[in-house]
Amino acid sequence: MISVDQATAITLSHLFSPPVLKVPLRDAVNHVLATPVFADRDFPPFDRVTMDGVAIAYKAWEEGRRTFVIAGVQGAGASQMDLPGSEVCIEVMTGAVLPRGADTVIRYEDLTMNNGMATVADVIVDKYQNVHHRGSDAAAGSALLSPGQRISPAEVALMASVGITSVDVRAWPRVAVLSSGDELVAVEEQPGPFQIRRSNTEALVSALRSMGIEAEAGHLPDDADIIKREIGRTAAECDVMILSGGVSKGKYDYIPDALEAAGIRKLFHQVSQRPGKPFWFGVGSRGPVAFALPGNPVSTFMCFYRYVRPWLLHSLGTEVKSQAAVLAEDFKFAPALTYFLQVRVSGDGGVMKAWPAAGGGSGDFANLASVDGFLELPSDREVFRAGEVFPFLAFRP
Amino acid sequence: MISVDQATAITLSHLFSPPVLKVPLRDAVNHVLATPVFADRDFPPFDRVTMDGVAIAYKAWEEGRRTFVIAGVQGAGASQMDLPGSEVCIEVMTGAVLPRGADTVIRYEDLTMNNGMATVADVIVDKYQNVHHRGSDAAAGSALLSPGQRISPAEVALMASVGITSVDVRAWPRVAVLSSGDELVAVEEQPGPFQIRRSNTEALVSALRSMGIEAEAGHLPDDADIIKREIGRTAAECDVMILSGGVSKGKYDYIPDALEAAGIRKLFHQVSQRPGKPFWFGVGSRGPVAFALPGNPVSTFMCFYRYVRPWLLHSLGTEVKSQAAVLAEDFKFAPALTYFLQVRVSGDGGVMKAWPAAGGGSGDFANLASVDGFLELPSDREVFRAGEVFPFLAFRP
Repeated sequence: MISVDQATAITLSHLFSPPVLKVPLRDAVNHVLATPVFADRDFPPFDRVTMDGVAIAYKAWEEGRRTFVIAGVQGAGASQMDLPGSEVCIEVMTGAVLPRGADTVIRYEDLTMNNGMATVADVIVDKYQNVHHRGSDAAAGSALLSPGQRISPAEVALMASVGITSVDVRAWPRVAVLSSGDELVAVEEQPGPFQIRRSNTEALVSALRSMGIEAEAGHLPDDADIIKREIGRTAAECDVMILSGGVSKGKYDYIPDALEAAGIRKLFHQVSQRPGKPFWFGVGSRGPVAFALPGNPVSTFMCFYRYVRPWLLHSLGTEVKSQAAVLAEDFKFAPALTYFLQVRVSGDGGVMKAWPAAGGGSGDFANLASVDGFLELPSDREVFRAGEVFPFLAFRP
Repeated sequence: MISVDQATAITLSHLFSPPVLKVPLRDAVNHVLATPVFADRDFPPFDRVTMDGVAIAYKAWEEGRRTFVIAGVQGAGASQMDLPGSEVCIEVMTGAVLPRGADTVIRYEDLTMNNGMATVADVIVDKYQNVHHRGSDAAAGSALLSPGQRISPAEVALMASVGITSVDVRAWPRVAVLSSGDELVAVEEQPGPFQIRRSNTEALVSALRSMGIEAEAGHLPDDADIIKREIGRTAAECDVMILSGGVSKGKYDYIPDALEAAGIRKLFHQVSQRPGKPFWFGVGSRGPVAFALPGNPVSTFMCFYRYVRPWLLHSLGTEVKSQAAVLAEDFKFAPALTYFLQVRVSGDGGVMKAWPAAGGGSGDFANLASVDGFLELPSDREVFRAGEVFPFLAFRP
């Protein structure tokens, strides 16, 4: 049995290498950028007015002039006008180019306008005020975004501004989700007295979908031959298999053998953690990576967020931000296993506090609806004190 | 000019009332639940085995018996077997019902199995160990989820387990996004020397889409008649209008008049904040709510996350979690305006620290790509000290 850290290191040393895919700009959010994005022009591309008002030559104000003849209006988007002399001004609109010969903008709030004249109130005027200088944010040709950046609406805006309508991103892997076990029926079926519905498949498909990944989902009965056949077929068609159930020591736990038979070499089986101890992980020589997760709903859920999701993000080449939280109450856990404690968190005062809400164990996933994530408590201790800081694994957006 | 808090209060006192919509379970993530979800059976629905091993009557172990004849195998999903007597055991698989007459499960790791007999090692056995009792997580008929819950994969799993294939959620409002200004061209067009591309529309559409909302997007030229006509037409077809640009004091800022002409009553214009001061908000008598945001890219972006997104979530009836962060460096901002400082955050040690990365002002949205959100600094001070806590507005998932 290996530790959580060892299991993490092993999974992260067998990443998937996703090809580059072009997606329309509006579909790019959540994807990981594959190529750099460069400024096609200076940012801003011209000396840009940032306040509605009048543009003047600062020198005139410095020499004492306070009243200016209005020589025209420079609208946003229009060609650059000329400031014909230091005794005149041009009305300028936010977003317009600064007229040639002007260097300073005085906003309407500091002006009185009368009979085609603008008079500056008794205010301090600074040279270049309300002007956003060409190239001051970024020079043409400079890199605005780097590969590996996870795309949020901010990056979409930036790519739009340089004319990118189709974005180079890392393709999602093809993911297959397979549940197993004769105790499971489809969601739309009425379970027998000793059966339950397949909630794990739905949890995994939804969790993948909220990352942006559309997964194929299937189910395996407790039949060694069918399992072998279906796993072999699936392995040939996907990059990542996520299985749930059938990896314990039970008589009908055929999954590990079937994975090996499909050419997927076991790298570990069993991790010293609760929940999720029977977790199995393997890789094919040319084929997919397989995460075979224990079937208890909380185990499946925790293992997805602790192992599978970071593995997917690392494979896509993006940074995975780790989080930490402060335990809000003393907590005890005796077994020599890393314990993933269900917690509610609050962020009062800038401190992320985690309140234990352990629920009824790995089978109790009704409890998941009232928590925000898992606090990762190390295996080498039994007592965890209020005020101590531990890694926090969030599963809500 | 009103304060940020006043503006917030006014927007939140004019919410949209979304109808109930049914969506397939797999599409439910990110939606807000509209009706409660009840347990259709006890959770778990039967006394459930949580470890592979053998089931016995605890009394026999208590009386000193350590070797049991294996009388059969109770598989997961199969009908409940009987434990025929206290000298026997039944092999049980994780997820199976506990055989009738048994009350305790001993895992394989603590057994030796030979010639049809199981012998218990020298371990402590507790009555009911490795049994997850019927109804211990939730009783049939009890509420598992309440209306207003934002649906994550955890809630999908829970709904799957009670057989919900179609979920009652709050419908998203119909949202129209309109940019304005002759300086703007479409993303795929080559801008003239004094034009830029329409990045705000893309930012807003993407931000809405990452909430789950598909918005219509359009553009208005600086022409009072066209603006009036298009705003009137759009107002009749949507629940929420989000406009960007055309709300300053400029000569071509026709948006407020056009909104009023479309029957949308102004509730405020101008908020004492930077960026985003010219923000206009109004409501129609039967028609849509309009957020007319300033056109500077950072202003539009900040106003969406500070005002529009919380308004949408409140309208859907869900809780909006506020966040706070600790300023990591001293910062000065003199004007008597609430300042939304661009910051990078890190969560070391459970403390959310915010590092100022102010960039070049409201026009500098290249800077947004390198920050995580905005720290909201109050208007009544000029100096903000490292270590002080302020509200934090995140825009990355």
